[in-house]
Amino acid sequence: MFSEAALLLVGDELLSGRTHDVNLHRFSRLLAEMGLPVVMARVVRDIPQEISAAVKDSLSDQRVVIVTGGMGPTNDDLTVQALADAFDLQLVRSPLAEKMVRDKQREYGLGMPISALKQADIPEGALPVLNPAGIAPGIVLHAGNCVVICLPGVPRESSALIMPCLRKAGVKPRSVNKIIFIRTWGLKENDLFDDLKKLAEKNSVVPGFLPSPGRVDVKVSGMGADGFAADVMKKLGSRVYSTLRDETLEEALGRKLLSAGLTLATAESCTGGGIGRGITAVPGASSWYAGGVITYSNNLKISLLGVKKKTLEVHGAVSEQTALEMARGVRRITGADCSLSVTGIAGPGGGTDAKPVGTVWTAVSCGEVEKAYLWRLGGERESVREGACARALGTLFELLP
Amino acid sequence: MFSEAALLLVGDELLSGRTHDVNLHRFSRLLAEMGLPVVMARVVRDIPQEISAAVKDSLSDQRVVIVTGGMGPTNDDLTVQALADAFDLQLVRSPLAEKMVRDKQREYGLGMPISALKQADIPEGALPVLNPAGIAPGIVLHAGNCVVICLPGVPRESSALIMPCLRKAGVKPRSVNKIIFIRTWGLKENDLFDDLKKLAEKNSVVPGFLPSPGRVDVKVSGMGADGFAADVMKKLGSRVYSTLRDETLEEALGRKLLSAGLTLATAESCTGGGIGRGITAVPGASSWYAGGVITYSNNLKISLLGVKKKTLEVHGAVSEQTALEMARGVRRITGADCSLSVTGIAGPGGGTDAKPVGTVWTAVSCGEVEKAYLWRLGGERESVREGACARALGTLFELLP
Repeated sequence: MFSEAALLLVGDELLSGRTHDVNLHRFSRLLAEMGLPVVMARVVRDIPQEISAAVKDSLSDQRVVIVTGGMGPTNDDLTVQALADAFDLQLVRSPLAEKMVRDKQREYGLGMPISALKQADIPEGALPVLNPAGIAPGIVLHAGNCVVICLPGVPRESSALIMPCLRKAGVKPRSVNKIIFIRTWGLKENDLFDDLKKLAEKNSVVPGFLPSPGRVDVKVSGMGADGFAADVMKKLGSRVYSTLRDETLEEALGRKLLSAGLTLATAESCTGGGIGRGITAVPGASSWYAGGVITYSNNLKISLLGVKKKTLEVHGAVSEQTALEMARGVRRITGADCSLSVTGIAGPGGGTDAKPVGTVWTAVSCGEVEKAYLWRLGGERESVREGACARALGTLFELLP
Repeated sequence: MFSEAALLLVGDELLSGRTHDVNLHRFSRLLAEMGLPVVMARVVRDIPQEISAAVKDSLSDQRVVIVTGGMGPTNDDLTVQALADAFDLQLVRSPLAEKMVRDKQREYGLGMPISALKQADIPEGALPVLNPAGIAPGIVLHAGNCVVICLPGVPRESSALIMPCLRKAGVKPRSVNKIIFIRTWGLKENDLFDDLKKLAEKNSVVPGFLPSPGRVDVKVSGMGADGFAADVMKKLGSRVYSTLRDETLEEALGRKLLSAGLTLATAESCTGGGIGRGITAVPGASSWYAGGVITYSNNLKISLLGVKKKTLEVHGAVSEQTALEMARGVRRITGADCSLSVTGIAGPGGGTDAKPVGTVWTAVSCGEVEKAYLWRLGGERESVREGACARALGTLFELLP
């Protein structure tokens, strides 16, 4: 029934440079994978006439129009009124939407300010959809053989609502080629691309590369996908941490630790808590993660972890020896079965000729095994830090059975 | 002469999810700062009719229309032809553009394939602009009292070309409507909106609200902006951490610590390192941040921080007493002048009737002062965690002179 999609992003903040939109990219990919290619996108201000006009312009035969943003309770949230205006409909208080809003306000312990109820007013004939990650319900409105879906702009909420709304709208994924995800850590996109070029040709596939610092997902579909995936797994070995689309490196590591009955502790310098934060984003991580230390200063490396003063003087804070002593130290003070440590130069300052910005040492300690690794990472401060987190986690993943 | 801008992003790859566009964000901000607010943006496929139609739709009185993408030599680069079509112009070989292309091909050691000369064909009457970062020249075309500027889509090239093209087009920065940002912590968007409603009416302004967990920015411009900002600052007091658009809460806190000559340590449970990670995202944070501990398990709260076993048994890990003992403990083991601690229930599991998901205790310890705070936070696991980070940081910010 539906064959294509259009996106309409609403919000002054997207056009003022205040917010860096991610919905365009995320939804384009998702919808393409569902067999609903996005054929156009528009970004409009929080001005009802402009939103209405853009909604009307976006309608076309067999099209799903997805509108994000402007769904909240405040007076610059004008999307729902504009949607009603576009179709000459009245806004009506939906009892179902009201229940959703009231339940969520209660769940979140937010009381029930009168302004929140605005989120229960939807165009007559529209359907509200429960928001799994926030308060404002999604809205589905059929219009001829088109359908308009309105979602909050916050990416966490729009991502959580998009599939329930598509289902409510009766949009079914068209027969799409199976997509295989091969999730890797510690490889650079360019290198990976060159490495896999021959395998892609051999299997007649065109893989997609989805990079983030320290982690690259390879995505492949079509006839040769299974053969390609098997070849890649063989070539990359333990640099592949998962073939499940949604399993993070932290979750994959937790899976291995849990099945081996081991606990983990972390000692971080340049990443400043990023590894711990990533690990504790996994619900239930407390069954395998004890905690750790953030030793940002040299003094704390000495006093908390027992790194030797001499080690710091002779080899420096960013060195194999320091990384190993950090990993050893955090195991000793926490009693954990395994540990990992990171020390590096994230920049922009602090680099030298011998140890330029991007120089990172990581170490793992597990049972009787101790290993340290040197990484030369590129990019800005946050790239170096995120890249270092992935490599520390990856080396322990690699080491565990 | 020019008062506003429109953006037109051309390229299948932007709508297929393959490429994550950055031009929208970058140019929106640049143009807003130049006093040329971007009033609309569109993303279209590499289809000449769609590009032409979008160019025509984007024209408006006193508007600068900026088109990016589809300027290269290959056969899916169709923007220039579409631009000519939009105005019923012929493409002509520009001697000036030809020289630019030939010089660049030579400079890059690329020889002179005939296909490259396609980049020297521009609509009659248009002006070519030298590309400092690539081969394809920019194109400036006046159309009535509008101007259309075409740039390559590659961010490095479009960023290098935008200012030369604006100058060639005769666009001068206008006196900009000042925008005031009031950055707050620890307030919920709904409550803030209700709180500021009267002040907004009194000053005849329509503030925008930009929320993220634990932090809401209020944005205001126009005649009444200064009065509104003064009223808001008075009302919210230390819940405002900055009026600088780019200053984060972590930076504002660091500014205070640095000027007071104090150092900070952190003790995190449910946030798992998120506070440390946020702090260490600030370059130079080492001059005021020592580090800290992630005590995710109760055992580590006891062994590393000296939280009393009895405290955990009687009051629980998520309690005023535990938060205070954590803050005290991390000061003792690090020797820092100040500390902050967090312990809470981030969910989805672990909630009880007395302490539902979202219950968070934070504490600060600074000099002789010790304080603990109870928060009831809403939303998903990551919202609770991020909200808790902001509140822990904010309470110390509030306490410092």
